[in-house]
Amino acid sequence: MAKTKPVRKETAETMGARQREISVSEFFLKNRHLLGFDSPRKALLTAVKEAVDNSLDACEEAGILPAISVELRQLAETRYVVHVTDNGPGVVRKQVPKIFAKLLYGSKFHRLRMSRGQQGIGISAAGMYGQLTTGRATRIWSKTQRQAHAHRIAVQIDTKTNKPVILEDEEVDWVPTFSMDDPTTQPQTAVHGTCVSIEMEAAYVRGRLSVDEFLKQCAIVNPHLQLHYRVVLLPKKDPKNNGQDVLPGTEPPWCTFRRGVEILPPPSGEIKPHPHGVELGVLIQMLKDSGARTLKVALTQDFSRVSDKAAHYICDTAGLSPKAHPRRIAHQESEALFKAINAVKLMRPPTDCLAPIGEEQMLAGLQKEIKADFYTAVTRHPTVYRGNPFQVEVGLAYARPGENADLGHDDPVRVLRFANRVPLLYMGGGCAITRAVNTVNWKAYGLAQPKGGLPLGPLVIMAHMASVWVPFTSESKEAVAHYPEIIRELTFALQECGRRLSVYLNKRKRAAEAERKRGYIEKYIPHLALGLREVLQFDETEQDRVQQALQEMLERSHLQL
Amino acid sequence: MAKTKPVRKETAETMGARQREISVSEFFLKNRHLLGFDSPRKALLTAVKEAVDNSLDACEEAGILPAISVELRQLAETRYVVHVTDNGPGVVRKQVPKIFAKLLYGSKFHRLRMSRGQQGIGISAAGMYGQLTTGRATRIWSKTQRQAHAHRIAVQIDTKTNKPVILEDEEVDWVPTFSMDDPTTQPQTAVHGTCVSIEMEAAYVRGRLSVDEFLKQCAIVNPHLQLHYRVVLLPKKDPKNNGQDVLPGTEPPWCTFRRGVEILPPPSGEIKPHPHGVELGVLIQMLKDSGARTLKVALTQDFSRVSDKAAHYICDTAGLSPKAHPRRIAHQESEALFKAINAVKLMRPPTDCLAPIGEEQMLAGLQKEIKADFYTAVTRHPTVYRGNPFQVEVGLAYARPGENADLGHDDPVRVLRFANRVPLLYMGGGCAITRAVNTVNWKAYGLAQPKGGLPLGPLVIMAHMASVWVPFTSESKEAVAHYPEIIRELTFALQECGRRLSVYLNKRKRAAEAERKRGYIEKYIPHLALGLREVLQFDETEQDRVQQALQEMLERSHLQL
Repeated sequence: MAKTKPVRKETAETMGARQREISVSEFFLKNRHLLGFDSPRKALLTAVKEAVDNSLDACEEAGILPAISVELRQLAETRYVVHVTDNGPGVVRKQVPKIFAKLLYGSKFHRLRMSRGQQGIGISAAGMYGQLTTGRATRIWSKTQRQAHAHRIAVQIDTKTNKPVILEDEEVDWVPTFSMDDPTTQPQTAVHGTCVSIEMEAAYVRGRLSVDEFLKQCAIVNPHLQLHYRVVLLPKKDPKNNGQDVLPGTEPPWCTFRRGVEILPPPSGEIKPHPHGVELGVLIQMLKDSGARTLKVALTQDFSRVSDKAAHYICDTAGLSPKAHPRRIAHQESEALFKAINAVKLMRPPTDCLAPIGEEQMLAGLQKEIKADFYTAVTRHPTVYRGNPFQVEVGLAYARPGENADLGHDDPVRVLRFANRVPLLYMGGGCAITRAVNTVNWKAYGLAQPKGGLPLGPLVIMAHMASVWVPFTSESKEAVAHYPEIIRELTFALQECGRRLSVYLNKRKRAAEAERKRGYIEKYIPHLALGLREVLQFDETEQDRVQQALQEMLERSHLQL
Repeated sequence: MAKTKPVRKETAETMGARQREISVSEFFLKNRHLLGFDSPRKALLTAVKEAVDNSLDACEEAGILPAISVELRQLAETRYVVHVTDNGPGVVRKQVPKIFAKLLYGSKFHRLRMSRGQQGIGISAAGMYGQLTTGRATRIWSKTQRQAHAHRIAVQIDTKTNKPVILEDEEVDWVPTFSMDDPTTQPQTAVHGTCVSIEMEAAYVRGRLSVDEFLKQCAIVNPHLQLHYRVVLLPKKDPKNNGQDVLPGTEPPWCTFRRGVEILPPPSGEIKPHPHGVELGVLIQMLKDSGARTLKVALTQDFSRVSDKAAHYICDTAGLSPKAHPRRIAHQESEALFKAINAVKLMRPPTDCLAPIGEEQMLAGLQKEIKADFYTAVTRHPTVYRGNPFQVEVGLAYARPGENADLGHDDPVRVLRFANRVPLLYMGGGCAITRAVNTVNWKAYGLAQPKGGLPLGPLVIMAHMASVWVPFTSESKEAVAHYPEIIRELTFALQECGRRLSVYLNKRKRAAEAERKRGYIEKYIPHLALGLREVLQFDETEQDRVQQALQEMLERSHLQL
């Protein structure tokens, strides 16, 4: 029987002999909670999220209006298979294994461009989790526009080397079992797309942290998305009837989130790093890697916002020749160059690379999904943190008492968080967005607020951060890190919305007040008319006329309020 | 001037061409906040922490009483060099570059043993941060017992490949500039040890989240550690005196935390994984990697707590031959085996691999550092989460009003968190320890407590989690993840301490009450004696005697309280 190994004294040599490389797959397998796979419930959400994010990114980059279907099919008590199918550009056969079964592999990490994915971990991690809990491979069907046939590939990760192992690889007809076309209409033959299918230990639960909620919020911030969704659960066993199925296993219908707009969001461009956001070590690396043959060309080509004039000025300040070779500078004079770069004034990074949701779309999304009386939205101008352009947007929806059963008058407000159009459900407590909401003094805008906490009231706050690089607090991308610049921008947007809310609330308060006064006066008008009749000896017709005149006067004054 | 790149429609082919591997160094360089290097202030703490953790682990594994010196030397406004020197076993020359300049490399990841380090990231990450912010290499001096000379090596990480680049490598006399011996006594020539020196952008700030606080808490939970510490700041410039130094740059003295005990903590052993904590995917991998030639031997050798009998029972249940080759099982019948393993009853994992601090040492540590009136400590029995043995300990120190100026009567209590003897300073809000403290109903023990928050009072709570694998919420190892088993154990320990606290608080309350009553009675004794004298016609002597008798009676009854 294996017991605790007897402890022996180590030496530098015995310790040295045990030093080994750790593959990034092994690392994240042991630390799977870092990737959002801590519980069966969260694992299901994370897998769907990663697949949908990838589909949306691919469709948008290829200029295709996305149609995505998500199916969760229960195989056993705690086992599900997740199918996500899209009408995107497909994946070329050679890249499939690495994209779906190798951690830290992708096209989005080495560029500065607003996209949902940015790490090259997500979908492979979902596959790895499936493999860990069920031993099954990830299955991918994919067809590109150019290929005559689709191909189906089954891959697993060799976690010791972080390399894909291909188990099946064959040409097939495109997506045999699940259609990504609108199942309610005439099915069309898709010409291209990708379908990923992962079997995993999972738990399907409804509620605020569910796949249902994620997809619903996805539809709010992606009005150009046509989404089909269904959950196929196992029939419940009837314990009274010898464990026979209560219902024969019927396939439930698809639930469809219809596309709201027929155009894609404006395409987001890629930018070069801004010199003021580049750290010394990165500068050195960039000089080493530069394709340019002179320092001046390297500065103007590899960075954004460096004009010829600025490049000359930088070289002068650093005492370097603009014709020096970048690689030589990297080794010897990088610190002088770094100081010179940070001393020169440059335009802020270009911000047309960002594609915010926009105030109009934010309002439309809120109005569609949240029953309320007052809506407002603010999109701030883009700004910069650590050299990265970013932009925040905030929307509010405030319900009248009793108008929306989900929103209690004494409950904390509900905060919907988004980053690059992806809903963030978990880890609200650790997110810069929540921090910003807590920081704002909501009492000034007419809401109750416990010290340092969320304000109370029938209010939904929607906040979106768009950036070429969203700083998440963990690989599972559930919360935005607390950069002061980001919290400041969010605070400004929240305050602007708050001011508008307070105008609305004051107006409503005044209206209620006036209504109350009007009620009082109305009650007295007949008595007043009767009194006047007696004093002025009016007849009944005149009394009626006076009463009506008073009523009209009251209504006019009420309208002016 | 480089502007936003014009957006073009991508195809599967153009997207495929841009797919690339991301090195783990690049990933963490861009996400350095995940490793604890978000701000200059936190970076300094994280670097010191990683170096000290490594030194302590190495000394303990080699059976050496640790003597460590930490020096922070300011080079410019926001630039420091961190030197950490130990008297450990040293590092063999060949391993130095990889240990100090390659992420995910080490000896602690692939074993189950209680140690401070477990990821193989920390010290290389600190060096990478130094390289990023200053362009400088990490310098290491090391001498093993067997080597005649020490060697000095300067390394950087090639972040594109995550491989070390050696810049200097020479034999030198052992640690030239900073001594790891007690600087207050006669310097001895060290025979072995390691010194690491990292130059980095940093900020030295005092307070609850400082290096000072970290080292102080380190000394509390590592009473066998002799620690020398100093901060050498640049002289302040005098603006009135032409920017001349206010003080000449003198070297401040070392501050020493003296060793409290002369013995090492009991050595912690390494264990094999327990079958009930192993997931299907890991089981398959272990069968594939097994050195055993039959399934039975693989089960008994590679896992803990599987006897020959249990192995046979498992094979029977799964319908497999005990003589089958493990590699064949891995491919075909692993699921049956997995189910059989989880159906069999096995002893819980061995727990003698854990080395808790112990109630006595916890009390000693608290008494040494926290001025208070009441101390208590509880070490729970070891238990298991996801197959990993772990053990929690909690200590309390409660001060009387006005006794300790740091602890306010109406302030939230102070929580000191530790994992495998390492103080955790940041991310308290996201830690299982804080969650457990908030969960306990402290009102039952006589403390005020806002709903769902920390209790209020002049109380310090110290909590330690020891495990062969501490599940941290991020790579920076600042908070313990919310595993229900861990929170439950912590809650039990906190409740036990809470009960003891309430006994103390009740006693104090009763004593105060009795004191108050005694005061009343004492006031009336002379009058009573006078009354008795008048009624019973006593003389003055008798009156005195009665008064004294009453006084004695009162004192006796008071003692009984």
